Amino acid sequence: VAERGGADYLRRHAAEIEAAAERIRPHVRRTPLLATDLDRRLRLKPESFQRTGSFKARGAFNAVLQLKRRRPDTAGVVAVSSGNHAQALALAARTAGLPAVILIPFDASPAKVAATRAHGAEVIQDGVTFENREERARQVMAERGLTLVHPFDDWDIIHGQGTAAREMLDDDAEIGTIAVPTGGGGLLSGTALAAKARDPRARVIGVEPERADDARRTLRAGAIQTLERAPDTLADGVRATAIGRRSFEVMVERGLIDDIVTVTEEELQDSLLRAWLELKLAIEPTAALPLAAFLAGRLPDGGRPVGLVLSGGNAGPDVVARLLTATAGAR
Amino acid sequence: VAERGGADYLRRHAAEIEAAAERIRPHVRRTPLLATDLDRRLRLKPESFQRTGSFKARGAFNAVLQLKRRRPDTAGVVAVSSGNHAQALALAARTAGLPAVILIPFDASPAKVAATRAHGAEVIQDGVTFENREERARQVMAERGLTLVHPFDDWDIIHGQGTAAREMLDDDAEIGTIAVPTGGGGLLSGTALAAKARDPRARVIGVEPERADDARRTLRAGAIQTLERAPDTLADGVRATAIGRRSFEVMVERGLIDDIVTVTEEELQDSLLRAWLELKLAIEPTAALPLAAFLAGRLPDGGRPVGLVLSGGNAGPDVVARLLTATAGAR
Repeated sequence: VAERGGADYLRRHAAEIEAAAERIRPHVRRTPLLATDLDRRLRLKPESFQRTGSFKARGAFNAVLQLKRRRPDTAGVVAVSSGNHAQALALAARTAGLPAVILIPFDASPAKVAATRAHGAEVIQDGVTFENREERARQVMAERGLTLVHPFDDWDIIHGQGTAAREMLDDDAEIGTIAVPTGGGGLLSGTALAAKARDPRARVIGVEPERADDARRTLRAGAIQTLERAPDTLADGVRATAIGRRSFEVMVERGLIDDIVTVTEEELQDSLLRAWLELKLAIEPTAALPLAAFLAGRLPDGGRPVGLVLSGGNAGPDVVARLLTATAGAR
Repeated sequence: VAERGGADYLRRHAAEIEAAAERIRPHVRRTPLLATDLDRRLRLKPESFQRTGSFKARGAFNAVLQLKRRRPDTAGVVAVSSGNHAQALALAARTAGLPAVILIPFDASPAKVAATRAHGAEVIQDGVTFENREERARQVMAERGLTLVHPFDDWDIIHGQGTAAREMLDDDAEIGTIAVPTGGGGLLSGTALAAKARDPRARVIGVEPERADDARRTLRAGAIQTLERAPDTLADGVRATAIGRRSFEVMVERGLIDDIVTVTEEELQDSLLRAWLELKLAIEPTAALPLAAFLAGRLPDGGRPVGLVLSGGNAGPDVVARLLTATAGAR
């Protein structure tokens, strides 16, 4: 792995991640690394406590601050997202004094729209659908001279996300395996670049819903595989239909990802509940992916601690209420 | 306050708290101090991540280790509790290689009984009622030569509980006010002894349900006030009907508690939900007491950060499901 990864390649990216950590430090939280009664091998990085409630703040702040440095006259940023990237980018832009425009499909949950507006972004929903949103974003970019900040296929975003794994290994250098949720691959590739530069023996594993196993198939096939449609999964943070080109480079061309494993929807539900009831962490479904993989025995530990990046905490109360209600009867 | 408290008195207790911290260090977790998007003044000490899911592990380990040191031939410990003290004492005793017998009223929730047994304690429920449990405990003590470990009216317990505030001030010396849930007063008096020894200007405030305002009335009256019956409150961890004699000493005789404030059941419910949904912390209702007081504006901050000890995370899924279900519709 180290050879294909290339010492120079890793060194260069590790330096970028270090610079990102320095750049975003005044704006993001250094989340703790938690041990738990559930299993003594586990080390949890709860990005649910991160600003805006997810790790996305790391990448968004890095991307916005880099943009401002490179193009001081930029008119602002635009993104297509109804999720954590939208809120993170809105906050980062406001902090940097830049306008942010977020395109959200007209039928998205009002709570998510409100959260994005609460961070000061302009939200455009009128006539925006899941299908036409990319095209509409290009229109808005052109009309207003805004810069698109992609949620994952962007090196600044990737380097920002890598700062979580960097902190994790600063807090416990013994960690031998790190597992993260995998959608578009930004967190996964950032984690791999940070971890492998620090400890070439560290294993980095992506976790996907079985119903959204494109990254797993991509790793196996050696070519980007695309889901036919946005997957129907409880893990709404990993509904990207394919990983980005940069993550493909890290994963396949550089061979820096050790494995992608999948979990069923049932395993995911169960681990979400266990996170809330046993870990006492009110995480969102997507964040329970690595825990589900751990509990299913799919993260070989080689006798060393296992670090899980619990990606965020922006769960809908309805989802959790439904699961808790079903469980309360059974316990 | 400092004068009545007495420099010698504080110094002596602070030394005991420091010794307790050293003694229990291998067995308890150093929980983090969290900042949050909810309010920049807040500092949260989530004892929900403590071993056995509550701060009670601190006092229980200190009491058991002290007992073993003072009476190496002890036959074991006994306690009357169906809550967090039972689980904490069970784990501490097992760790120290001592038998633990816990008396739990016959009609307590099976989940709590199971949790206590899971930590290796012998549970006696047969014929135990809320009314006769103290008497039954004395019987068991006499028959088996066990030592009673009181859940709050015990200096070793109080000194153990004080280690949480000590860590809090180690992590952020700027904190000007610390608020904690108040039932029997063990956490409150330990917190006051730790905090006032460190910073005489620090304010220490206990928070009670309005329905269980005996500590508030005790502070006002200058004599221990007792509730007529165990209060009907969502905060099931503070159902003691009066504070202990030692806590009375700290609070009234030594004047080390700045205030006791109360919150309504509605305020408590709302803050529990906000803890789960906004702080991303799956705490138990009792732990939401100080948050409720903060949100209601009852914790004057004097411009300095406010530290809340979120006492535990052993919430029943049924309670939280019910609250989340009611909320999910409204949000």
